[in-house]
Amino acid sequence: MKRTERVGAIVKILSNHPNRTYSLNYFCQLFQAAKSTVSEDVSAAKKLLAQLELGSIETSAGAKGGIRFIPTVSSAREEFLLNELSEKLSDGSRILGGGFLYTSDLMFDSHIMSHAAELFAEKFQDRGADYVVTIETKGIPVAFMTAHMLNLPLVVVRRESRISEGSTVSINYFSGSTDRIQKLSLAKRAVQPGKKAIIIDDFMRAGGSIKGIIDVLSEFDVKVVGTGVVIAAVEPVKKVIDDYYPLLYLGRVDEQKKSIEIIRT
Amino acid sequence: MKRTERVGAIVKILSNHPNRTYSLNYFCQLFQAAKSTVSEDVSAAKKLLAQLELGSIETSAGAKGGIRFIPTVSSAREEFLLNELSEKLSDGSRILGGGFLYTSDLMFDSHIMSHAAELFAEKFQDRGADYVVTIETKGIPVAFMTAHMLNLPLVVVRRESRISEGSTVSINYFSGSTDRIQKLSLAKRAVQPGKKAIIIDDFMRAGGSIKGIIDVLSEFDVKVVGTGVVIAAVEPVKKVIDDYYPLLYLGRVDEQKKSIEIIRT
Repeated sequence: MKRTERVGAIVKILSNHPNRTYSLNYFCQLFQAAKSTVSEDVSAAKKLLAQLELGSIETSAGAKGGIRFIPTVSSAREEFLLNELSEKLSDGSRILGGGFLYTSDLMFDSHIMSHAAELFAEKFQDRGADYVVTIETKGIPVAFMTAHMLNLPLVVVRRESRISEGSTVSINYFSGSTDRIQKLSLAKRAVQPGKKAIIIDDFMRAGGSIKGIIDVLSEFDVKVVGTGVVIAAVEPVKKVIDDYYPLLYLGRVDEQKKSIEIIRT
Repeated sequence: MKRTERVGAIVKILSNHPNRTYSLNYFCQLFQAAKSTVSEDVSAAKKLLAQLELGSIETSAGAKGGIRFIPTVSSAREEFLLNELSEKLSDGSRILGGGFLYTSDLMFDSHIMSHAAELFAEKFQDRGADYVVTIETKGIPVAFMTAHMLNLPLVVVRRESRISEGSTVSINYFSGSTDRIQKLSLAKRAVQPGKKAIIIDDFMRAGGSIKGIIDVLSEFDVKVVGTGVVIAAVEPVKKVIDDYYPLLYLGRVDEQKKSIEIIRT
């Protein structure tokens, strides 16, 4: 294989599995090439990704060392992605009765959720998390893509405990959106004590469900080291959690005028 | 930029968004290069992907033409992926009471579900589908990744209708696994009449839920053109649907011996 082909292959393989470390040897064997040759290929791959702001390649030394692809988002790209999301969200035809918005099409859109996940991955890359945690249902795609980009397992908190989850720990919490007590449960097998987690969800109003996730994780001695939500409502201003990172804020929804106010953070 | 860099960038950008068509012009502008140069770059990218069996690039002519990346799976890779999944599934510690298996860790694992989705995408690439449809919860990751690879929207059928879905169509179906009538519902905004869908789910016993999805889609005049499940149980032998493609079959689960029989299709 020629250099051009080897570099293309390195880019493809590394970026297929972000944050997974590959040994230099893996590529030496794949290409039947010397270590010095592959090192130069990696440098070329690193350079081209940097030049086009498509991510970075990190090299680590030592026995467990190797190379891995780290997704990064340039500020121009962040601007573009947030504008795209903001524009799609502010479409007045999303307004349902009672000021609710229909967002399933966006939350289940693989392009848009990959983009949102890129932003979360960049934000939470260095928190040392062991898991990405979400609650069913609409947060699963974005949390799954964030887990993919950070090379972490995804853990899904359920609203009902199911037989296929084995034994679970359940808690009750007050949900402001539905104005009642809700239950959530987590399988005992899902997490190990003493670990760290990032919470990713689609939408947050007062933060009741996220507080619920934090509480159930604390039952497992799992500490939350970051929380990201695609959309946070401006109201209520007083949230039940302090530390969260929303991509966008949802302001006033006017059913008469069919207008939706989206605020950039 | 040099050829090596341009080819690497083409591979990265195309494979980030499988089945999305990019015009040659897009790359001419990105690289500030002539069409003939970019054409040669694309040929080099095509050649390296083919050589390492990492997927293919298809070129289409005409005004709407361009280039797109199509995920493909070599038979050696298929063998590897199915062995990996089979091995993980047959771990006796997955056995829960009543012969149920704990599979959430696998169904929420981004590597394993990307691999399963590759196999589904390859299988259903040419069915002309407009949507990938699943039912909450555990099927969402694999269905989402399949949708990503086929560049299709994901539609999630819910078990309960929620206020944030707007008006919905609901049906009841008989679930063999739970031995009772279950409900499922689909938002009216989620699909357009006359379209085609692929159903992707994590697990199928008799096929009741999948039959339910087919039925609710038929209420919207949406035709199912393929069904893929990660695991299908051998029992009952008589299923309520005929046409499905399982990655693996689940045979006898022996609680005493802690053994799980996984059968390759």
